[in-house]
Amino acid sequence: MIRELITFGEAMVRLSPPGCRRIEQSQTLDVHVGGSEMNVAVAAARLGVSTAFVTRLPDNPLGRLVRNRIREHGVDTDEIVWTSTDRVGTYYVEFGASPRANSVVYDRADSAIARIAPGEIDWDRILRGARILHTSGITLALSASAAEATFEGIEAATRLGVKVSIDLNYRSRLWSQERAREVMTKVAEQADLLITTEEDTQRVFGIEGEDYEAVARELARRFSFDHVAITLRETPSVWRNRWSAIVYDAQRNAVHRGPSFDIEVVDRVGSGDAFAGGFLFGLLREGAEMGVRYGVALSALKQTYPGDVSWSTRDEVERALAGGGLRIQR
Amino acid sequence: MIRELITFGEAMVRLSPPGCRRIEQSQTLDVHVGGSEMNVAVAAARLGVSTAFVTRLPDNPLGRLVRNRIREHGVDTDEIVWTSTDRVGTYYVEFGASPRANSVVYDRADSAIARIAPGEIDWDRILRGARILHTSGITLALSASAAEATFEGIEAATRLGVKVSIDLNYRSRLWSQERAREVMTKVAEQADLLITTEEDTQRVFGIEGEDYEAVARELARRFSFDHVAITLRETPSVWRNRWSAIVYDAQRNAVHRGPSFDIEVVDRVGSGDAFAGGFLFGLLREGAEMGVRYGVALSALKQTYPGDVSWSTRDEVERALAGGGLRIQR
Amino acid sequence: MIRELITFGEAMVRLSPPGCRRIEQSQTLDVHVGGSEMNVAVAAARLGVSTAFVTRLPDNPLGRLVRNRIREHGVDTDEIVWTSTDRVGTYYVEFGASPRANSVVYDRADSAIARIAPGEIDWDRILRGARILHTSGITLALSASAAEATFEGIEAATRLGVKVSIDLNYRSRLWSQERAREVMTKVAEQADLLITTEEDTQRVFGIEGEDYEAVARELARRFSFDHVAITLRETPSVWRNRWSAIVYDAQRNAVHRGPSFDIEVVDRVGSGDAFAGGFLFGLLREGAEMGVRYGVALSALKQTYPGDVSWSTRDEVERALAGGGLRIQR
Amino acid sequence: MIRELITFGEAMVRLSPPGCRRIEQSQTLDVHVGGSEMNVAVAAARLGVSTAFVTRLPDNPLGRLVRNRIREHGVDTDEIVWTSTDRVGTYYVEFGASPRANSVVYDRADSAIARIAPGEIDWDRILRGARILHTSGITLALSASAAEATFEGIEAATRLGVKVSIDLNYRSRLWSQERAREVMTKVAEQADLLITTEEDTQRVFGIEGEDYEAVARELARRFSFDHVAITLRETPSVWRNRWSAIVYDAQRNAVHRGPSFDIEVVDRVGSGDAFAGGFLFGLLREGAEMGVRYGVALSALKQTYPGDVSWSTRDEVERALAGGGLRIQR
Amino acid sequence: MIRELITFGEAMVRLSPPGCRRIEQSQTLDVHVGGSEMNVAVAAARLGVSTAFVTRLPDNPLGRLVRNRIREHGVDTDEIVWTSTDRVGTYYVEFGASPRANSVVYDRADSAIARIAPGEIDWDRILRGARILHTSGITLALSASAAEATFEGIEAATRLGVKVSIDLNYRSRLWSQERAREVMTKVAEQADLLITTEEDTQRVFGIEGEDYEAVARELARRFSFDHVAITLRETPSVWRNRWSAIVYDAQRNAVHRGPSFDIEVVDRVGSGDAFAGGFLFGLLREGAEMGVRYGVALSALKQTYPGDVSWSTRDEVERALAGGGLRIQR
Amino acid sequence: MIRELITFGEAMVRLSPPGCRRIEQSQTLDVHVGGSEMNVAVAAARLGVSTAFVTRLPDNPLGRLVRNRIREHGVDTDEIVWTSTDRVGTYYVEFGASPRANSVVYDRADSAIARIAPGEIDWDRILRGARILHTSGITLALSASAAEATFEGIEAATRLGVKVSIDLNYRSRLWSQERAREVMTKVAEQADLLITTEEDTQRVFGIEGEDYEAVARELARRFSFDHVAITLRETPSVWRNRWSAIVYDAQRNAVHRGPSFDIEVVDRVGSGDAFAGGFLFGLLREGAEMGVRYGVALSALKQTYPGDVSWSTRDEVERALAGGGLRIQR
Repeated sequence: MIRELITFGEAMVRLSPPGCRRIEQSQTLDVHVGGSEMNVAVAAARLGVSTAFVTRLPDNPLGRLVRNRIREHGVDTDEIVWTSTDRVGTYYVEFGASPRANSVVYDRADSAIARIAPGEIDWDRILRGARILHTSGITLALSASAAEATFEGIEAATRLGVKVSIDLNYRSRLWSQERAREVMTKVAEQADLLITTEEDTQRVFGIEGEDYEAVARELARRFSFDHVAITLRETPSVWRNRWSAIVYDAQRNAVHRGPSFDIEVVDRVGSGDAFAGGFLFGLLREGAEMGVRYGVALSALKQTYPGDVSWSTRDEVERALAGGGLRIQR
Repeated sequence: MIRELITFGEAMVRLSPPGCRRIEQSQTLDVHVGGSEMNVAVAAARLGVSTAFVTRLPDNPLGRLVRNRIREHGVDTDEIVWTSTDRVGTYYVEFGASPRANSVVYDRADSAIARIAPGEIDWDRILRGARILHTSGITLALSASAAEATFEGIEAATRLGVKVSIDLNYRSRLWSQERAREVMTKVAEQADLLITTEEDTQRVFGIEGEDYEAVARELARRFSFDHVAITLRETPSVWRNRWSAIVYDAQRNAVHRGPSFDIEVVDRVGSGDAFAGGFLFGLLREGAEMGVRYGVALSALKQTYPGDVSWSTRDEVERALAGGGLRIQR
Repeated sequence: MIRELITFGEAMVRLSPPGCRRIEQSQTLDVHVGGSEMNVAVAAARLGVSTAFVTRLPDNPLGRLVRNRIREHGVDTDEIVWTSTDRVGTYYVEFGASPRANSVVYDRADSAIARIAPGEIDWDRILRGARILHTSGITLALSASAAEATFEGIEAATRLGVKVSIDLNYRSRLWSQERAREVMTKVAEQADLLITTEEDTQRVFGIEGEDYEAVARELARRFSFDHVAITLRETPSVWRNRWSAIVYDAQRNAVHRGPSFDIEVVDRVGSGDAFAGGFLFGLLREGAEMGVRYGVALSALKQTYPGDVSWSTRDEVERALAGGGLRIQR
Repeated sequence: MIRELITFGEAMVRLSPPGCRRIEQSQTLDVHVGGSEMNVAVAAARLGVSTAFVTRLPDNPLGRLVRNRIREHGVDTDEIVWTSTDRVGTYYVEFGASPRANSVVYDRADSAIARIAPGEIDWDRILRGARILHTSGITLALSASAAEATFEGIEAATRLGVKVSIDLNYRSRLWSQERAREVMTKVAEQADLLITTEEDTQRVFGIEGEDYEAVARELARRFSFDHVAITLRETPSVWRNRWSAIVYDAQRNAVHRGPSFDIEVVDRVGSGDAFAGGFLFGLLREGAEMGVRYGVALSALKQTYPGDVSWSTRDEVERALAGGGLRIQR
Repeated sequence: MIRELITFGEAMVRLSPPGCRRIEQSQTLDVHVGGSEMNVAVAAARLGVSTAFVTRLPDNPLGRLVRNRIREHGVDTDEIVWTSTDRVGTYYVEFGASPRANSVVYDRADSAIARIAPGEIDWDRILRGARILHTSGITLALSASAAEATFEGIEAATRLGVKVSIDLNYRSRLWSQERAREVMTKVAEQADLLITTEEDTQRVFGIEGEDYEAVARELARRFSFDHVAITLRETPSVWRNRWSAIVYDAQRNAVHRGPSFDIEVVDRVGSGDAFAGGFLFGLLREGAEMGVRYGVALSALKQTYPGDVSWSTRDEVERALAGGGLRIQR
Repeated sequence: MIRELITFGEAMVRLSPPGCRRIEQSQTLDVHVGGSEMNVAVAAARLGVSTAFVTRLPDNPLGRLVRNRIREHGVDTDEIVWTSTDRVGTYYVEFGASPRANSVVYDRADSAIARIAPGEIDWDRILRGARILHTSGITLALSASAAEATFEGIEAATRLGVKVSIDLNYRSRLWSQERAREVMTKVAEQADLLITTEEDTQRVFGIEGEDYEAVARELARRFSFDHVAITLRETPSVWRNRWSAIVYDAQRNAVHRGPSFDIEVVDRVGSGDAFAGGFLFGLLREGAEMGVRYGVALSALKQTYPGDVSWSTRDEVERALAGGGLRIQR
């Protein structure tokens, strides 16, 4: 079966106290499944992109739970590498309220995907017929072998004419800015699409500025990207955000601005990934302008319900883009 | 026993995911009971109006659940028609957050009340001594036989000198605007009180305009209503609304404006019905001016807790009208 | 993609009060998804059988929820027929305790699958390469058109050399014993495998007796079945059951008895379906003897956690068959 | 409106940890409403007896919650005396498992009903037309004034030809055996019906013996009761009980034995009260034999779901009496 | 062991409906533990102050629950006086939404601490080596004997050179303004530190004014306080508050203003106590300026999660003071 | 402060699906805290033994949660070693029902305690004045450095005249039987008390037999133990167990048998640890005979509520030993 989009990375079990409880207060934790590239896969698949997610998981109840919750959305999980040892990475989220920001405690060291060995993934078979391979800086930061597996994928994609899409996703707990810059520069040079935030651009590549268009142009120029998308968030309070994005289309030398949404934030984790999923959908269907519009709207909707992944439909995205209004939809 | 207010319509089981979850995400659903005329009955009864609610329900656990949750508030449920067949209508609510509006999925076709046969309700006995019969466009839209039963009630009321109160409550899933206009025109001509929104006025009677007072006057003129009440909502975001109402008293040719409330919205379903219940209470006790004041305040309070029905007391309404303040009430 | 097993029928949303609460007492309901043929598909797929489930669903949140919860287990849902109208069937379960039996309230009339029209399913394409088509008396009882669609499937299967497996699954709310006998006789004459209970055999075909082996032989003789499997339950109390099964292999003229388990019952709904899924797995892999062993063990395990469907793995079934013991498995 | 049965006593808010949690472990408590005479009223009303419950409650959210949960079942709550001071009694239940018994912590001192003043209840009006007044030793033990109010009711009943029914319900936290004997002797001399356990008979009246029939006869003889009903429980484990009852009909000098049920116990609190409600229903409809049968069956069913009160219907009781079986009721 | 801070007062079980439910709607209640002086003890102990809390509790599951939840935070509970009689005070909170304010129902009469007898607490031993004794007007209002026990403590503190800190905490349900003024004047004359709100200052001492600095100076002058701290809240809506405080240092004749925070309010109960705990911590470590800064920040954070007590760490307070920002903290 | 009992080992966060759900089914997990030696500390402390628990934890919300839940029970946590790196071990429990046993998934590798370095614990100071040091085979199996730290403790105890108590607690996931035998033999030679099961005795030391007394004598003889306690469980079903224990007192050459309890099992995890805590309490207060009695009763009670640790009081243990009965304790 031909799959348009292949994403590669870690999928974790996420545990979060209900409401705005602290972890120390909790007698129960809500269970979600998340991980940047997995979130992108779900977002795109729900919009209709044929998508497979590649990772490595232990064959235990937690590994199966992760796999189930991905295929629940129609993502192809047949390419997951299973192991009888190793663990599933977990992480904990505390949801805040101004002036207390949301916070995250990671417990992801030595997960099955971090312990992947080179050659475990049959990239040539997996990528055959695909149009885009998407991954992020997190996967490269997990471990040396995970980075090696990623580069194997990128090289196979290049060989097979599959576009490579990358999200910087800088995580300071995983590596230093210096190390990230070194590796991500190498990745960027082979990638075709960049999806990032202004903050990560600054931290990883040292490019900053108030003018996001100029930043996007500079990134495209430096690394020869086809497209550079930058998401833009304003955070007046924890529960009220403003959200938009731009994309620079290098071939057409055009900047497209997505719509801007005021968001009553229920769960902002994974919003960049929902943007990426929506962006890739639009890009595949019509081009960068459609991409930035669907990306922003899908991502705005994702922030209005709990969990890392999108549960929205194409209809809902289109209604939001059409200015659907806030009355009850009966 | 003499009951001042009789309401007639459908009562449904409402199922909604907790918090802002989507239905697709849910492993549990919260159970509430609601229905426009039932909600009016509860609102009025809690303020002290002797009230009975008339409907048709199957004698199974769901039918009993609906009946129980109504009489829990002191509404007389002795006039409910029981059947050993048919179903209870259900509906599902997803609560949103900007830019995602609340949405509703109805599963109400072929409910016991929709299948009521003419003559099943002994209107003459039920309405004896009552002062107001209240129903809404929903009941008329459910089915031909439900409409017929409603007209039987309206005619009995007219015969017995009981005032007829009507809420337009247009539901596009149940009937077309044309069909609604045809039927509701016939109803309006026999009714004494109209409770509606500007939006429904436009959709059902094609009367629109920025000037709500003029709209109310025009409605009263066209259909010879004693009173026309219009609720007014502004929706800057899903969680923050502004809420008020006006009433036009045709006999005194006077317009009364209710107070205006900024609302942190927990559950806005049923707010028009809470207004109606509070309005009828005030009208019965003192007149239209008291009605619009109690209606607006009761309805504002109802939107601050979950469920379709009012759980507020007369004391609480009066405290809100007196500008109770937002400090903790110890 | 070749799928070994195709099952066809209704999938419903199941709502049940937590614990042993009554429906009338409930402010929340647990959401599960179930339906006899869907349950068989999940049970078989989890053991490793490549399986597709065919049904008809409305494209709304409830329809998507049902689809998601099926593909979560790896069942292929690509053959589901989607409609923009009609409803998802629902049903309510109250869990009892001696002397109060579990009870079920169905609200399934006029569901999307009951309203399927002949020709909507492309059976020839779907069944290509399959080994077994499984359905049950429920599907035939839903409506005339659902029965017609089922016969279309059975005929296509016969044409394509796909074995037909049938579970009697008599439901007195859906049809009379007379009507069931008439239709199921016609089905049985075309089917190759029968999976049933002693009770249904009696109610549908009027065959009864203490000697289940003789009953199985008689059924095989009368309808020329290859295999007849009968599940056997003893119910000393609501929370303690004893569970086993036999299968008669007509070709080898052999009766195989499954193991017998004492069960601490958490949720017995769907246990016959779990048996069927495990039985078909064993039959496909090795034969009827393996089938009855895996069917009984899988079904015994399914009764120990909530929901209609199996969440067990092949490893767990094999451990139970090997007499796994009741100590904590660390 | 004529009410057949009037019950009088305390209604409390009951708080219990979910499952078998200890109170010390709990972050949430389940809310139920209970009280011996209230439970009797609910049980009888659900079977179709026109019933009112008389108590005294503060006009605050807790008092209203108690009232609502009573009228939810169709019990008339119009005779409740409301006060703007005083509190609602509360109590806490921990559910056990062998060898840990269920345990109760009372926090009921100085509740509104304990502080009732003589003359607050208009017994003559309330009892007019009634057939039975039911109360229990608990009400007499609450306070001197509660006892006085009870005696006012008993005297009015006697005056009006209303039968007086009494449950001993000895509570050692409320009074000593000596004091109970003194007061309950006085009550028994005026009462017509006694409903009790063997244990309470021994503790209050010092009458004991293995032969319950002899005990019942002796009680009837000593206090001139028309009927003496004794419930019989065996407790092999916390979760498995055996339950029955006998009644002695003094006029006919006949002993009737109820059926005996093996119970998987979910919540045994209030089972004596459910018996009393079912017994009074049967007695009012047909006589003591029907009473003991309906009392035992209703009470057995009540122990299979959470809460102090009956949620069973007459149909369910009759099915249990007919040996309904433990298969799923579809 | 030397304890720097001793607080004395009532600790109650707090019961609150989840979300914005009303009490009348609730089938479950969340359990928290709270009480002004207990909250102060927890807040200070979590920041690193060696603290003991003195109260009186019954030796039952509720008393133990209260004790456990205090020592969970590292507060020394060894000085609690245990009794085999009496009750734990309880109170109920309903959380509102504009225009419905939060409201509280107290059920605290005759609690174990209200029934304390003079001499039950060995103040000389408990206070040995301590630096501050903190209590509030609530303790003095509970009962005559509780007031007497408080004065015993204050006198012992004075004797031992332990500073006395007092929060006015006026509760109109417990005493009149006249009685409060009389008693609190006596207390204020012996106290060294005052922590209060502008509202309480007005209600208890009749001192009012827009100029909080002047009010603080006047209080310090009139009662010879070393420090007077006043918290300042603005309440534009129930869910959005603005929060700050000032402190007047009489010895240095200096006013220090704390930072000001916009708060998305999850639970504002106990915020004054969190301020007091943070203030006393800062005062003990460095002085009044640090006190007001830590008090305001700790208190702002406390309002962002459920329950009466602080669950924040010193690190978190310092991050908030450093302007931590509202991005996710990974 | 003198502490009678010091226990040393790992404390983990335990996550378990509610009810009998599978992990794959769960959207929420219940949070408990457990670990063999921690459980022993809690059990003993609740009975009145002055106890400290020594471990190593990261200073993050999970580490603090673990610490809080231990000191909630009055265990001294001041000797915990804190680290700014490393993780808290977690484990997952699925509760079964016959024929599905409870099962556990561990995720404990590289926890803070496994990474402890020699010399991090000041054993001489901690053990000063103590009477017993208790640990188990789990701690020795965690890592080489954890084993080294344990031997440091054992040697310090020996030096200071503190008795050493050991539970074999063999975990096949942590080490092989050969490695366990080698290390535990060395430990046993230095220990004074052994608490174990027949199964572990066989697996670790290869001593087996039907005659538990003989096994206990043989163990005492071989390793010069003062006391050897063996717990005895029969498992007729997952929810019904039978539980007892014996202890051999080598000095008096006496075997004491504890009582035997039929248990309705809610949560059997940690029952051996509750036995150990109760046993050490009895041993410290009076001797081995009291020890085995209190150990068995405490442990039987612990299995009747959720979580790894004891929530029982000394009173409750004594009531169980006195044959408290299964009636409601009011």
